[in-house]
Amino acid sequence: MADWLTKQSEDYPRWYQEVVQRGDLADYAPVKGCMIIKPYGYSLWENMQAVLDRMFKETGHVNAYFPLLIPQEFISREAEHVEGFSPELAVVTHAGGKKLEEPYVIRPTSETIIWDTYKKWISSYRDLPILVNQWANVVRWEMRTRLFLRTTEFLWQEGHTAHATADEAQEETLRMLEVYRTFAEEYMAMPVLTGLKTEREKFAGAVRTYCIEALMGDKKALQAGTSHNLGQNFAKAFDVTYNTSEGKREFVWATSWGVSTRLVGALVMAHGDDAGLVLPPRLAPIQAVVIPIYRGEEEQALTCEAAEKIATELKDLGVRTHLDDRDQMRPGFKFAEWELKGVPLRIEVGPRDVASEEVRLANRVTREKEQMKVSELMAKAPALLEQIQNDVFQRALDFRTQNTHEVDSYDEFKERLVEEGGFFRCHWDGSAETEERIQTETKATIRCIPLDAPEEPGQCMVTGKPSKGRVIFARAY
Amino acid sequence: MADWLTKQSEDYPRWYQEVVQRGDLADYAPVKGCMIIKPYGYSLWENMQAVLDRMFKETGHVNAYFPLLIPQEFISREAEHVEGFSPELAVVTHAGGKKLEEPYVIRPTSETIIWDTYKKWISSYRDLPILVNQWANVVRWEMRTRLFLRTTEFLWQEGHTAHATADEAQEETLRMLEVYRTFAEEYMAMPVLTGLKTEREKFAGAVRTYCIEALMGDKKALQAGTSHNLGQNFAKAFDVTYNTSEGKREFVWATSWGVSTRLVGALVMAHGDDAGLVLPPRLAPIQAVVIPIYRGEEEQALTCEAAEKIATELKDLGVRTHLDDRDQMRPGFKFAEWELKGVPLRIEVGPRDVASEEVRLANRVTREKEQMKVSELMAKAPALLEQIQNDVFQRALDFRTQNTHEVDSYDEFKERLVEEGGFFRCHWDGSAETEERIQTETKATIRCIPLDAPEEPGQCMVTGKPSKGRVIFARAY
Repeated sequence: MADWLTKQSEDYPRWYQEVVQRGDLADYAPVKGCMIIKPYGYSLWENMQAVLDRMFKETGHVNAYFPLLIPQEFISREAEHVEGFSPELAVVTHAGGKKLEEPYVIRPTSETIIWDTYKKWISSYRDLPILVNQWANVVRWEMRTRLFLRTTEFLWQEGHTAHATADEAQEETLRMLEVYRTFAEEYMAMPVLTGLKTEREKFAGAVRTYCIEALMGDKKALQAGTSHNLGQNFAKAFDVTYNTSEGKREFVWATSWGVSTRLVGALVMAHGDDAGLVLPPRLAPIQAVVIPIYRGEEEQALTCEAAEKIATELKDLGVRTHLDDRDQMRPGFKFAEWELKGVPLRIEVGPRDVASEEVRLANRVTREKEQMKVSELMAKAPALLEQIQNDVFQRALDFRTQNTHEVDSYDEFKERLVEEGGFFRCHWDGSAETEERIQTETKATIRCIPLDAPEEPGQCMVTGKPSKGRVIFARAY
Repeated sequence: MADWLTKQSEDYPRWYQEVVQRGDLADYAPVKGCMIIKPYGYSLWENMQAVLDRMFKETGHVNAYFPLLIPQEFISREAEHVEGFSPELAVVTHAGGKKLEEPYVIRPTSETIIWDTYKKWISSYRDLPILVNQWANVVRWEMRTRLFLRTTEFLWQEGHTAHATADEAQEETLRMLEVYRTFAEEYMAMPVLTGLKTEREKFAGAVRTYCIEALMGDKKALQAGTSHNLGQNFAKAFDVTYNTSEGKREFVWATSWGVSTRLVGALVMAHGDDAGLVLPPRLAPIQAVVIPIYRGEEEQALTCEAAEKIATELKDLGVRTHLDDRDQMRPGFKFAEWELKGVPLRIEVGPRDVASEEVRLANRVTREKEQMKVSELMAKAPALLEQIQNDVFQRALDFRTQNTHEVDSYDEFKERLVEEGGFFRCHWDGSAETEERIQTETKATIRCIPLDAPEEPGQCMVTGKPSKGRVIFARAY
């Protein structure tokens, strides 16, 4: 299967693009920078949505829907927000056969239209908090795009909450960050660092931006989700105040938080190998594929019947199972295809297996094969999938540990950044100037100021000025 | 509660708008013709989505996602399609700070971009059928808009399937029509007629359009869903052919089908009464509301505790239950509010009820009240909700039966159309001229040529020319 897929070590970006396209996750669209999410890729997104939506509802949130189109003037109400998004806007100037008096922009995010609405919804402390989420598409006109990682249009969820106090808003910001961390680690099997973005990297319009950061297979970082404390910025821009229980009038406090179809790209790069995708069982559209192996019609009838019975039994156990009984393809081709698609368990059924009531089981993660009784498979399957889920996480965690470096010299940093890659835990003097200098000289950015880092005073690796603790540097997507 | 809500008989359109806005379903947006779907309204849509999505998957469909933006040139490939949609398009002319070389339109529907994609996906009969659905937002620049019924942007699902034969495409078209009928009747409790649209009323680009048509409370018709047999129109426009099993090259056959957030408006108008919404239990976001009734703190503690226990027990039975223990509102206000919101069951718990382990149960549909033991409530609740589901359907069916008229004289038709409204089963000569004349003179359109109508030759009520069978006329939304 050497010519099946480019090796990661040969050309990682090309490997990524091939896996995404041949693995039937997505394809380029005839629209600049847009993608078509194919059924297999979309079902991965649906599985993510189902878990996240449940987690949002368990934390008290409800869904709503706000318009796609936003009056252009809204975007300019918040100074930092307009500066951050103006270069990326798509503008509707004509509609219904006429030129519009006021153009609309396609939402790049919905803070402005939502806070314009919250002005109508909020008058008293009794109306707070508002805990709303929206599943939607957004458009940001990007120059360089890559399937799932950066596309002109993408799908996401955006939470927008309104609170009576600064403390409540901060609590909510961190609560949702923790929801994202839990989702990334327990479902995507992807270990993440949680931390604060620097002033330079924060969301346009936020007071504080928190993020989850993951390490990809090529040792570059990827921001996988963000949770923003917006302070009173949007309340002030849209004049949203409330009567406190003491009868005073105050501005409302806000948060927003989001994850997008970028998570699909993260999943591909966090776990994939030279054979293709490796999907954690909890999110895999197909957890087990059953493949009959035969020569001639007699064996075909025998093995297909047994394979179908096994597939049905697995489905009854709650295992998402696919029976691949296509007769125009050889088993080797099917094996490679399902490995490319990252299915955790492959179950082969040949004529001898039928006779002995056995199957041959292949594990996508360990690549091990094992012969076992059908009855044993049924007894073990759910636990085996949980084992694979844990293995995928542990493998990614070990990889991150091996590729996280504590470095105190800028020269060593520059050298190892190029030669080794990964996360670098370094001291930084806290200034935007130093941050910018490092980025210009090395293409590395501060991914986050970790939340759980120990207090550890030191000296900035570049300027020697005092530092409160180490921050995380990496080259990133 | 006389001033709470306009009476249907006084001003139906105003009643509708008040119910939708005060019932927290939706509100107007600061964007021409767009709406904000509020959490209560959105959760109704989510319940609809969940059922429909399951029904689509059970009939073999998978979800995918195609771009929001479509190259303007694509729309013009199919002659009827471009004529039908051109007046309604919203056009993106600028993006990323520049004028675009080629403008994009925001999808009004996705046949064109999907068939451009299917050209890449289909080469052999082995690639067929393709059974894809998409949940998405679309934009059609409408002149006159009304919340849910006709909005510039709306949410919908659009199925797009590709088949090897004309027969398969026709089967699929009718299969999805039947899915819509089942959903409308069994979940929305809304009886619908199924039938064929006339040439004049069919979808721009379709060979045949089938629809489900419902009767609203003001005796106007509403098209609630459509299923189109597209023949080879889009395959020819986008040059999508396949190799048959005999090695011949043929154009692919297509269907598309959709329902939208318009269904929420249909639900409001199919069942609502002067007290507000009436929601069928299977779709109601809240199936039962529990309200403690008390004076003073002692009774408050007592009744709230009992009410909470009852709410928890109902939730454990799978009943979607809300405890309304807000202390700043009087019970009468709460009763009216939950009636407005259409909650099927209201459970009142006063101090005497607590002592006797009883509750007072109010039925939103029959408006009857009944005193019963808590244990009896728990034993009965799920069956009672099913009973209400059936009652809502039966009431709507009786209403439709009473308001369906068989008329043979055009004069009688014109008179009764104005005085009585409803569905009119009449003979028509099959010509577009007569159809147009009737519409011009009466504002009534042919809603459908019913699928299950008996063969009944007759004479057109207008021209006296021969007619094969009766068709359905009505004034419609």
